[in-house]
Amino acid sequence: MVFYVIGLGLGDEKDITVRGLECVKQCSHLYLEYYTSLLGIDTNKLEEFYGVPIIVADRNMVETEAEKIYENARDNNIGFLVVGDPLCATTHIDIILRARKLGIKVEVVHNASVMGAAASCGLQLYQYGYTVSIPLFEGDWKPDSFYNRIKYNMNGGMHTLCLLDIKVKEPDYEAMMKGKTKFLPPRFMTINTAINQLLEIENIRDENVISKDSLAVGMARLGQPTQKIIFGTLEELRCIDFGPPLHCMALCGELHPVELELLEHFRVNDNDLRIVDYDENDSGNDSSPEPDL
Amino acid sequence: MVFYVIGLGLGDEKDITVRGLECVKQCSHLYLEYYTSLLGIDTNKLEEFYGVPIIVADRNMVETEAEKIYENARDNNIGFLVVGDPLCATTHIDIILRARKLGIKVEVVHNASVMGAAASCGLQLYQYGYTVSIPLFEGDWKPDSFYNRIKYNMNGGMHTLCLLDIKVKEPDYEAMMKGKTKFLPPRFMTINTAINQLLEIENIRDENVISKDSLAVGMARLGQPTQKIIFGTLEELRCIDFGPPLHCMALCGELHPVELELLEHFRVNDNDLRIVDYDENDSGNDSSPEPDL
Repeated sequence: MVFYVIGLGLGDEKDITVRGLECVKQCSHLYLEYYTSLLGIDTNKLEEFYGVPIIVADRNMVETEAEKIYENARDNNIGFLVVGDPLCATTHIDIILRARKLGIKVEVVHNASVMGAAASCGLQLYQYGYTVSIPLFEGDWKPDSFYNRIKYNMNGGMHTLCLLDIKVKEPDYEAMMKGKTKFLPPRFMTINTAINQLLEIENIRDENVISKDSLAVGMARLGQPTQKIIFGTLEELRCIDFGPPLHCMALCGELHPVELELLEHFRVNDNDLRIVDYDENDSGNDSSPEPDL
Repeated sequence: MVFYVIGLGLGDEKDITVRGLECVKQCSHLYLEYYTSLLGIDTNKLEEFYGVPIIVADRNMVETEAEKIYENARDNNIGFLVVGDPLCATTHIDIILRARKLGIKVEVVHNASVMGAAASCGLQLYQYGYTVSIPLFEGDWKPDSFYNRIKYNMNGGMHTLCLLDIKVKEPDYEAMMKGKTKFLPPRFMTINTAINQLLEIENIRDENVISKDSLAVGMARLGQPTQKIIFGTLEELRCIDFGPPLHCMALCGELHPVELELLEHFRVNDNDLRIVDYDENDSGNDSSPEPDL
């Protein structure tokens, strides 16, 4: 039987490929990877469209129950669904190669990923350097390894794609101390928080890598109908409400005239420049303080 | 009416997304972009599956007849099909933005691209720097701008994705001198030729960027059932027959232990090490000389 690893693309249930859908329909059940990205719709919508039961799999489950998933794949067709492209995260390549080592037949179905869709803003994919992940700072825990990479990209004239932190199924230690297994609601870093963190690190390191006047492109919900792309300075972008997750951001390196022309279509305007309104009840926003205007 | 710009993915007619197929079926006719990439199947297979007539559009047609395409889109739904993802090449972003300027409604349907599928080999997408294009050298015309970029990537420990030249619809000047409009058969650069050219430039520039012992991954027909991925030194890879196009190659920067472990699955072995057999009649191979063994 076959272990299908299928990319779902970026938007909703219809962003699966025709081949992907054919594979899904041959599966006895499906695992949906839910810890490196986020789809624009609910799982039950997927289930309805595909007609196959879906098990939502967090990182822990995939890592500890991998053998069980493989075991199932000996007698059944099993699908492992990944938001975006299945191979953009090393963790999924690992799952595939481990299955193959066990003699299980694996088929991969590619799809669009955020790393390709990041070209939507007009910055050429060719010109991107290192991709960095910006982690949510917690108290004094402020890892800044992204800073050196941004610096190297900038010095070489390259753009930098910044992927923003996702916190899913984090243990609620307070509840756990009372003997309950409880998880915190998911958190997704906003572009606003990312900019505040970047400027904070610049302030500490003081190596002139970025400033409030650095040009960047904020991108929210890439590949979804409500996608929002805005080009401006970090100072401008950090005042904009980009709405629900996922957010990412590109820091501009040297800009080619063609890129500049394309970016102008997304230039920040007065409509965008509203004060960010953090809704504390909306799990779509992280809990960063309101940015200064 | 709508001007749909639809990514086809990398393999065959079934790599279109469910949403893409729905859009295609609403179109009066389709243009297939045919100058930046190559699908694994014939156009008539696409036409049959989609049930809509397809016009193959070369670069010249797209650039000179864009207005006509837009004009059609005022009264009809028109589809513009792109191999891979529509936004990975700047030229397509330009088409979209020009259409929007004319008030035409544009919808983009994303898909997998070679820049995402390049992760199949185990090199992390995060760790790639500049993407370079290697042009086919012609006589004394040996542009080497890729060399500086590879050097910058290497110095920063980043991998380099090398896209290899595609020559489609080149004028046949000999025939033209006799008053005939004729085009040369399409040519696609092989990994073997790319390696020979890289080493040739290294030999001239002599800046110790690459050598015969540099590690790289040759990738042919990514995302297609016959995909071939082999990891080895440039010396090893340039003796391997990767088969029909398209080919691309990743030059390894600093390798993380996880990457090395994944790459081992693709390590060159004795079966791969056959002498490259250039079939002169096969337009799939370029006309480079046989490499030294």
